Amino acid sequence: MDTHLNDLIEFLRIPSISAQSSYAEDLSRCAQWLITKLETAGLDASLHKTGGFPIVIGKSRNWQASQPTVLIYGHYDVQPPEPFEEWFSPPFEPEIREEKIYARGASDNKGQILAHILGVQETLQRKGALPCNVIFLIEGEEEIGSPSLPRFLEQYQSILKPDIIAISDTGMVKHGVPTLTYALRGVAGLEFVVYGPAYDLHSGIYGGAVVNPLTVAARLVASLHDATWKVAVPGFYDSVRNLERWECDAEPLISDVDIIAQTKAPALDGEAGYNVSERIGARPTAEVNGMGGGYQGEGTKTVLPKQAFVKLTFRLVPDQDPTHILDLVETHLRAHCPKGVKLEIHRGHSGPAYFVDPRSVYGRAAQVALRKTFNQEPVLCREGGSIPILQNLKSVFGADSLLLGLASPDCHAHAPNESLPLENFRAGIRLNQLLLEELAKVAFRGDIPPEDIAQASHIC
Amino acid sequence: MDTHLNDLIEFLRIPSISAQSSYAEDLSRCAQWLITKLETAGLDASLHKTGGFPIVIGKSRNWQASQPTVLIYGHYDVQPPEPFEEWFSPPFEPEIREEKIYARGASDNKGQILAHILGVQETLQRKGALPCNVIFLIEGEEEIGSPSLPRFLEQYQSILKPDIIAISDTGMVKHGVPTLTYALRGVAGLEFVVYGPAYDLHSGIYGGAVVNPLTVAARLVASLHDATWKVAVPGFYDSVRNLERWECDAEPLISDVDIIAQTKAPALDGEAGYNVSERIGARPTAEVNGMGGGYQGEGTKTVLPKQAFVKLTFRLVPDQDPTHILDLVETHLRAHCPKGVKLEIHRGHSGPAYFVDPRSVYGRAAQVALRKTFNQEPVLCREGGSIPILQNLKSVFGADSLLLGLASPDCHAHAPNESLPLENFRAGIRLNQLLLEELAKVAFRGDIPPEDIAQASHIC
Repeated sequence: MDTHLNDLIEFLRIPSISAQSSYAEDLSRCAQWLITKLETAGLDASLHKTGGFPIVIGKSRNWQASQPTVLIYGHYDVQPPEPFEEWFSPPFEPEIREEKIYARGASDNKGQILAHILGVQETLQRKGALPCNVIFLIEGEEEIGSPSLPRFLEQYQSILKPDIIAISDTGMVKHGVPTLTYALRGVAGLEFVVYGPAYDLHSGIYGGAVVNPLTVAARLVASLHDATWKVAVPGFYDSVRNLERWECDAEPLISDVDIIAQTKAPALDGEAGYNVSERIGARPTAEVNGMGGGYQGEGTKTVLPKQAFVKLTFRLVPDQDPTHILDLVETHLRAHCPKGVKLEIHRGHSGPAYFVDPRSVYGRAAQVALRKTFNQEPVLCREGGSIPILQNLKSVFGADSLLLGLASPDCHAHAPNESLPLENFRAGIRLNQLLLEELAKVAFRGDIPPEDIAQASHIC
Repeated sequence: MDTHLNDLIEFLRIPSISAQSSYAEDLSRCAQWLITKLETAGLDASLHKTGGFPIVIGKSRNWQASQPTVLIYGHYDVQPPEPFEEWFSPPFEPEIREEKIYARGASDNKGQILAHILGVQETLQRKGALPCNVIFLIEGEEEIGSPSLPRFLEQYQSILKPDIIAISDTGMVKHGVPTLTYALRGVAGLEFVVYGPAYDLHSGIYGGAVVNPLTVAARLVASLHDATWKVAVPGFYDSVRNLERWECDAEPLISDVDIIAQTKAPALDGEAGYNVSERIGARPTAEVNGMGGGYQGEGTKTVLPKQAFVKLTFRLVPDQDPTHILDLVETHLRAHCPKGVKLEIHRGHSGPAYFVDPRSVYGRAAQVALRKTFNQEPVLCREGGSIPILQNLKSVFGADSLLLGLASPDCHAHAPNESLPLENFRAGIRLNQLLLEELAKVAFRGDIPPEDIAQASHIC
């Protein structure tokens, strides 16, 4: 285990922040580190240049036409670590406290993808061969919307063509509870800037006569929801697909108490008519991720600011189309923007929601692997996050993705003090081995015998 | 003139930023610089410690009971210079370009108060005595609401007791047009913070179930105005005094075209039913001076932020009471704050509006001095800015304040690239001398002969 942990620490030390252009060299270094790691594990590794950060491919050597081909997707880039001052230990100096490793990327996604690589390494060391053909596809642009991946997939479509895709980039519903995520929300990003006067004005000398861009930005944000937290953009809910019958029948696993315990929010509220499970897993949202303008320092500065910015993302559910949603939002914002300012809208990355039936043969194999790994019945989960490229993988390869998350609910992904329990890291290494075994059985037998099927009766 | 300009450059070089505690030493240094300057000018100077930054007093030596006593008020502290990157030359390295001096404090207030000191210096050099008893009162906390001044005034009430107060801390309505400001708006500041979860959350994993503090902050800001830009805080306008008859009859000097030329705003809008002059001079406002929360960097970071802040100031008109207005605002914000967040409200500095009849004997003397200084008829102006201590000076001394501004409309006070035309600096030195002469005549004759009275027929 010590070698595995050392690998993880090395991987986490590299500040591979894809959103900030000054880290480009670290992303290259991180990709190179993966190449070495994949080769050490016993795979053929190659680096593929893109318009952005490189894509790393690792392929098993004992390729057998009779075996199913499993593509394991992950990413080596991480979210920006700001605000630095809130980290108890620096984001790129991994620290182990109470059996968790703390660092940016610990859960999202370095710890999880590395567990799969190490699982393959262990199988190869122990048995000399894998039960499936395995392809690792590890990109460096997931946190910025995977701009280079679609083109890469098109180019290598015939070479990579997997039967099934496995991804560990999601979470476990509760600590220690194995979780198969069968639905993820999509995402559509949009940033807008409200421009007013050419420079910051004295708010006494001009206030009242000149429209305040911050006030306008706030009004535009406020216009996104009605009083019951429904998104107020006309047409926003038009193509939202309802929950499946079997989902409605299952017992929800997540309650207000869980979410309050995890987040320490004073109380919860959200779209009227839905419980927290539904609000997170099955309903679309409009969130402000960042907003600012005017004086940011200590004390008072009586300016009427020249501009204000707002960073928005919309989480989407089946069958909302991201481009159409952004069209609706843009129309809504322009319609609500008052006279006296200039509104500039920039669209960000986007991807549709994902839904795969967890009762498929591969889904059932994944449930078996999860049960054997954790020695506990897995639960089926709709998660609120997004992996925009899932839909892309599906359309290029025709293959479904199995989402086998290893992150804890309190992993603080995208936030300060991100962590991964060492127990989950170890479980991930085991899971990879059991999963490949179970997937090989499916290909061999066409299905799993009924007695092996985990009867997941809970969803979240 | 060169010596005077050197004095100004020295004065402007000191970063006396009262809002930021790290500059405390520079404020002391600035006060000390003034002591030396006042003594060089021929006055008795003294430094008065307060709970905050020191108050500087300069008194003329040839004190005569038969002469009127004129208190000249100013301040040596300046607004924070941020954002630094927007200054064409550094804020504390004064630079002269096209006959203007650029530096933080050039207009507000170092250039203007120094002109008065230099005016006194010239009179003393030329005549050996002043026509009035003169007291300079120069504080270091104007930009943070003059917290120490009221107590100081109470303590020194009997010693300082002036007949009339002169202040150059306002603006000229147009370049070269002498301006007597007879009304200023009051100000009431309030900052609020909306707290949600204990840390920044992943907006996918929790978005929809946890209330977003930035969205709440935006909704609270949006709740401050109705669709016609009227302030929507119940009771806000209840004690607003209407314009005087003679003000309504005068021709407004400021138009939309002027404000657009000065600010480069795309268009103007404001409270329905009022023109720009009224919106700035006679109507109260609610302004957001700063707001922020969540991700502030480049690109996207999909967080649901743990908190958001908003810095507000309200400009007030006669007879709005600042404390009462803040009570109304606080009640309004609490009533509009939804479930799921914690709202913390911190009140800032405040002061009521000021109004003095410009047709009083002293007001008429000031108009004569302005006309002689600029060789042009002065205009009477309601200005939108605030000097909260005016009401305090009035109540302690019973004396009115004459507001003889020297700042240009494009001076960028409180903003990057603040400047003062050198011509206005020179005019201020002349104005001080003519003003003291005219005020002495009032005391001697009880009034100004009608033929000397500037018949200001314009207001702004």
